Amino acid sequence: MPGIIEDTSIEVAIVGGGIIGLSLAAGLIKHNVKVKVYEQAQGFREIGAGMAFTANAVQCMSLMNPDIVSALRSGGAVPASSDKDDPNVYLTWIDGFNSRDKDDPTYEKMLYRLSAGHRGFEGTRRDQFLEALVKVIPPEIVELKKRLNNIEEKGPNGRIQLNFADGTSAEADAVIGCDGIKSRVRELMLGEEDPASYPHYSHKVAYRALVPMEKAVEALGEYKARNQHNHIGPNAYLIHYPVANKTMINATAFLTDPGEWPDDKVTVVPGLRKDLEIAFADWNPCLRTLIQHFPEKLEKWAVFDTWDYPAPYFNKGNICLAGDAAHASSPHHGAGACCGIEDALCLCTLMSQVNDRLRGDESASKNKNAAVCSAFEVFDFMRRTRGQWLVNSSRRMCDLNQQIDWSDKSKWIKAETCFEEVRDRSFKIWHFDYDDMIKETTDAYAKRQPVTKGPESGAI
Amino acid sequence: MPGIIEDTSIEVAIVGGGIIGLSLAAGLIKHNVKVKVYEQAQGFREIGAGMAFTANAVQCMSLMNPDIVSALRSGGAVPASSDKDDPNVYLTWIDGFNSRDKDDPTYEKMLYRLSAGHRGFEGTRRDQFLEALVKVIPPEIVELKKRLNNIEEKGPNGRIQLNFADGTSAEADAVIGCDGIKSRVRELMLGEEDPASYPHYSHKVAYRALVPMEKAVEALGEYKARNQHNHIGPNAYLIHYPVANKTMINATAFLTDPGEWPDDKVTVVPGLRKDLEIAFADWNPCLRTLIQHFPEKLEKWAVFDTWDYPAPYFNKGNICLAGDAAHASSPHHGAGACCGIEDALCLCTLMSQVNDRLRGDESASKNKNAAVCSAFEVFDFMRRTRGQWLVNSSRRMCDLNQQIDWSDKSKWIKAETCFEEVRDRSFKIWHFDYDDMIKETTDAYAKRQPVTKGPESGAI
Repeated sequence: MPGIIEDTSIEVAIVGGGIIGLSLAAGLIKHNVKVKVYEQAQGFREIGAGMAFTANAVQCMSLMNPDIVSALRSGGAVPASSDKDDPNVYLTWIDGFNSRDKDDPTYEKMLYRLSAGHRGFEGTRRDQFLEALVKVIPPEIVELKKRLNNIEEKGPNGRIQLNFADGTSAEADAVIGCDGIKSRVRELMLGEEDPASYPHYSHKVAYRALVPMEKAVEALGEYKARNQHNHIGPNAYLIHYPVANKTMINATAFLTDPGEWPDDKVTVVPGLRKDLEIAFADWNPCLRTLIQHFPEKLEKWAVFDTWDYPAPYFNKGNICLAGDAAHASSPHHGAGACCGIEDALCLCTLMSQVNDRLRGDESASKNKNAAVCSAFEVFDFMRRTRGQWLVNSSRRMCDLNQQIDWSDKSKWIKAETCFEEVRDRSFKIWHFDYDDMIKETTDAYAKRQPVTKGPESGAI
Repeated sequence: MPGIIEDTSIEVAIVGGGIIGLSLAAGLIKHNVKVKVYEQAQGFREIGAGMAFTANAVQCMSLMNPDIVSALRSGGAVPASSDKDDPNVYLTWIDGFNSRDKDDPTYEKMLYRLSAGHRGFEGTRRDQFLEALVKVIPPEIVELKKRLNNIEEKGPNGRIQLNFADGTSAEADAVIGCDGIKSRVRELMLGEEDPASYPHYSHKVAYRALVPMEKAVEALGEYKARNQHNHIGPNAYLIHYPVANKTMINATAFLTDPGEWPDDKVTVVPGLRKDLEIAFADWNPCLRTLIQHFPEKLEKWAVFDTWDYPAPYFNKGNICLAGDAAHASSPHHGAGACCGIEDALCLCTLMSQVNDRLRGDESASKNKNAAVCSAFEVFDFMRRTRGQWLVNSSRRMCDLNQQIDWSDKSKWIKAETCFEEVRDRSFKIWHFDYDDMIKETTDAYAKRQPVTKGPESGAI
């Protein structure tokens, strides 16, 4: 019997050991699909940036493998709001530009509030989650220091050989690129000449700072400091929420930059608190005070995404892209990784069904390629529209936050009519029907005949 | 007993005898609410423009008064697509700009298609529907040649006196402005100095033409001519559908105009076919041929809306606004009147409940004002967000149709990622939950205490 299992199971190679790659690996392991992860870095030390997951994405993790959720929580995820009498998380938009007197009833006006529900957003540090996630996966599954060079066909059955920069290589029946915004798999799949192979500058820069809670309370007041708030105004916005067991707030300011940022230049450069002092000079005094508590030297991030040149397809033969590799979004929805988790759940469903289809098939080794290619076609059909919508919608959210009309009193009412759209876009993310996605994916794959691909078609 | 009915029933005055005013009147009559309609024109002859109603709006009409639907259909409403084997209506977006060879697979590419369902859109001529609608309403309900001058308080109970340009006046307990985009009631309510009292130029102009079906078939081919199609491209689009018992097509071209259009200038001026020949010079040959079948002299309409300066509220005391008077939308969703019909259903529900509340109340004549003011507050709460969303969304739909990226091959894929948003916006209109609106309206009114307003508060 083990012989048959050996023959009919596919082997999946995941390129990239980030949050999406490791979550997918954990899901495949749970669903008895053979998998290997190839990560170019020497280890899993990443930048300590904050990230958040919706309750909906946490459910998707749980459907792949409940251990992913345990890892998230053991990595210190906490709700992004911290009202101890109310477990719901609220996203609150307030007027950050208005610099009028504190007695004015429209001073720091609360413009809009949305409830994301119970633990609706859980914030965590990327590095801490990743560290906990690695422990979910047996060590032999992951290979470090494997920078992908290229991919080629191997043998008559469409099996793939991955060649790494260190001269080694590996084989697989299916390759999934989870290698992030600067994906090498995307570049190999679309070709080096295609502008869709690379992310482009979104003309926004971000500055982030951690501020001790007592200083934040001093500047913002008790309530605002301890709960997520988004201070919006013309051409900029500043969002903050409590982190580090509520001893600090994580604040991020997004500024519009009409200038260019060369594609080949590093996207993180030194920035100064002074830049923010200038950008927010006309804003609310409480924000200006908060910025005074930022360190003098900050990191400045150029925000890149795949908005200008989206990938025309997420699959080619037995190779496909997931997460940021497929659709790198700007961070204005705070949900880029959530969409990648949805991708992973879809792929987990499909890879498991590929194995079901092949089980007991005496010609399995010959039919694996066709079964995988069909599955990746279904993945492209199920996920491309949503992934690209998220990239567009994230840009739009930034535009709505940064409306120039916020600075013109005669246009305030118009500016405030944006929030129905903000709500619709947020709900489309938060209320994603993952059960329906699984059902539709399953049905579409069941209906689809295996795609017969010649050995050359999967080659890049 | 008739004496008690006399004492407790409110009297509603509707200003404006257009589609929304007359539909609301028909609804109020059906719900035993006393109503009078004051129309400034000498009769109900309107321009013979085409308009369409969603299946959803037709349901709303039916809930107000099934005779409205009979009037719509007797006025010649037909589905906007005419495939005799398929009763569903489809909205189809095709590439109108591509001027490549007919053999090119992307020639006139079908970019997106949405099903609006069974009789999903019914197109009619405004004048024909209006003529049929007038017959639903007893003649003594409608007074013609009543141009509203101003409104004043009358007596201690907040009753309103409407003063007309002909020197006559009328009284009512509640005034509903259904007087369209150039609403006098809005101007009186917000004040002549408020820019929200007037619509503003949307920087789009529209040209419309009727083309005989055989000429349309010649230019577009059998299928396109007989079914709704939207030809989109950079800075312009052209939409057409069959009318006049399918003997003609109604074609409308929308062009972007960066110039200004003074608010006090007439919005319909003479235009020339030559204007369109120039605007569409680089477009698909079949469209250019179609335009050759337009009359040489056309009407050119400047599209105005309330996008720049939305009304800060739809109600003030016992006066409120509905339809275009409240939220005048550009026509790019083809659903402005549908939203007005939703308003009318909400008001019909509320006015009927005001009467229920007052029935048997011995102080009814004193309490009418408070009951009406509360009802109009609920109306504003229920309808303002959606009405203003529609105005914004209609602008956005035009932007998505007219993306500059349609002219740049390297940006086509990006441009095509807009359709998920097109779908979401369309569905938000087509799938409106009117049952839920009625329930929420009823609950909100039941919970609300009567608003006590001094006699001055309703005055303008």
